[in-house]
Amino acid sequence: MEFAPRYPGFEAKVRDSFARQQFMATIGANLAVVAAGEVEIRLRPDPRLTQQHGFLHAGVVIAAVDSACGYSALTLMEEAAEVLTVELKVNLLAPAAGDSLVARGSVLRAGRTLTICSGEAVAEADGVETTVATLLTTMMAVRGDG
Amino acid sequence: MEFAPRYPGFEAKVRDSFARQQFMATIGANLAVVAAGEVEIRLRPDPRLTQQHGFLHAGVVIAAVDSACGYSALTLMEEAAEVLTVELKVNLLAPAAGDSLVARGSVLRAGRTLTICSGEAVAEADGVETTVATLLTTMMAVRGDG
Amino acid sequence: MEFAPRYPGFEAKVRDSFARQQFMATIGANLAVVAAGEVEIRLRPDPRLTQQHGFLHAGVVIAAVDSACGYSALTLMEEAAEVLTVELKVNLLAPAAGDSLVARGSVLRAGRTLTICSGEAVAEADGVETTVATLLTTMMAVRGDG
Amino acid sequence: MEFAPRYPGFEAKVRDSFARQQFMATIGANLAVVAAGEVEIRLRPDPRLTQQHGFLHAGVVIAAVDSACGYSALTLMEEAAEVLTVELKVNLLAPAAGDSLVARGSVLRAGRTLTICSGEAVAEADGVETTVATLLTTMMAVRGDG
Repeated sequence: MEFAPRYPGFEAKVRDSFARQQFMATIGANLAVVAAGEVEIRLRPDPRLTQQHGFLHAGVVIAAVDSACGYSALTLMEEAAEVLTVELKVNLLAPAAGDSLVARGSVLRAGRTLTICSGEAVAEADGVETTVATLLTTMMAVRGDG
Repeated sequence: MEFAPRYPGFEAKVRDSFARQQFMATIGANLAVVAAGEVEIRLRPDPRLTQQHGFLHAGVVIAAVDSACGYSALTLMEEAAEVLTVELKVNLLAPAAGDSLVARGSVLRAGRTLTICSGEAVAEADGVETTVATLLTTMMAVRGDG
Repeated sequence: MEFAPRYPGFEAKVRDSFARQQFMATIGANLAVVAAGEVEIRLRPDPRLTQQHGFLHAGVVIAAVDSACGYSALTLMEEAAEVLTVELKVNLLAPAAGDSLVARGSVLRAGRTLTICSGEAVAEADGVETTVATLLTTMMAVRGDG
Repeated sequence: MEFAPRYPGFEAKVRDSFARQQFMATIGANLAVVAAGEVEIRLRPDPRLTQQHGFLHAGVVIAAVDSACGYSALTLMEEAAEVLTVELKVNLLAPAAGDSLVARGSVLRAGRTLTICSGEAVAEADGVETTVATLLTTMMAVRGDG
């Protein structure tokens, strides 16, 4: 979907918030794309992030897509709002390995209080993309004054 | 629910698998309880694991409860089986902070192929417990030979 | 959990709203229990409500548990509020048949805007109860004036 | 996604199964499209199907999309298989009213045992389409012999 940004500084606000997420640094994630209603986060699989079979732990994949979805919602919220994940549902479609993990979040419906997003994680290996997770989530705007 | 273990070595199998999860070491999680159909994982909140407001990142909370649920399912599967998360749904009920995070997984229904689990995460601060997440998930048994 | 009702007329409000749900009459559901944070709806399996194998259609089971959850949330909301299902997740654990279906909704956490509920459906056949569905859902309070 | 059917009779099998679902007749639903990995079900809003505010009950919307998803999965399963809904998650995006409800199911990933589908429900009113629900679900193949 196409969304119009509500104010010019939405990208700076998202980048600033992302920079304060120490866990994103811990998993080596960086913010690749910030557009109105769309955010992409990338990370490189690393042995420190693996589960018992050597693939990326589901928690890492979900953390990246959850953050991408949350920030895609935040791009369309009021300037003073913060974003909170109310709930998420994820189907894990394939083991996540390869050179790079791309986590994308997109707004499906932006409301005054609640924003519904879909997300996906794609693993890239030797130029081939595999969708490893698909996500459906509810985000909430929290106003600084309440 | 009360479940009978299928073979005596189920706890050793779970502990061995957990020890191979490098991401559990990365977030400082350890395996506190392994019983038939019930697993508890604990970790200590740490600045490296936080989101933009200084609380534990949802991805860390979900990783711990997902692993607790997966292992609770594994305790009831055949000796040769491995466990895979098919999907999970989580509601985040409160920000996670405090001295300790306790993630619990419990089997609701154990089938031959699919096991349904519920999970929760509780934050402990100064002796007070707050439920921070509740989870409903589908786990799958994967046989080594197929 | 134990909840205190916010005003004496909550049960009448729930019963009045239920009576206006024509679909509940269509599936033969009735409101068995209305307490603060807990609602139970019952219906009798009927050939008109079945799927291709003669069991109750998942849509009927979900409709009953969704309504039970929504009303359990409504019992704890302000007197002027209406309730809306934001989202729900259900695991279907067993085929639903028998003499009676009991759908229960319980509040896990009541917030000012959002209420999180768990639900379950139990089929009764010859005095034996089988849990056929378990549900986790987010409800929203909608004020008449906005 | 594009999927190749596994055997020529998949449409007849789906139509035959749908015809045995008495609940689909009860809610006035009919099978509009059956293609490999894609199914569309349509129904006409009717007072008998409404909730307390006069909109279609969420249970009716979910029943239609769940059936559309289940049958989209069945089109890609083996000829002898039946389909079962393991779990579903739905976000309700807008009240459902209008002249017609269109429920669509699409396969995201078809496995030997599990198939993951996405679904949506669209309400048509005076030629305008509104997405009223989005769904993510896990379907299971059940073989007649086991």
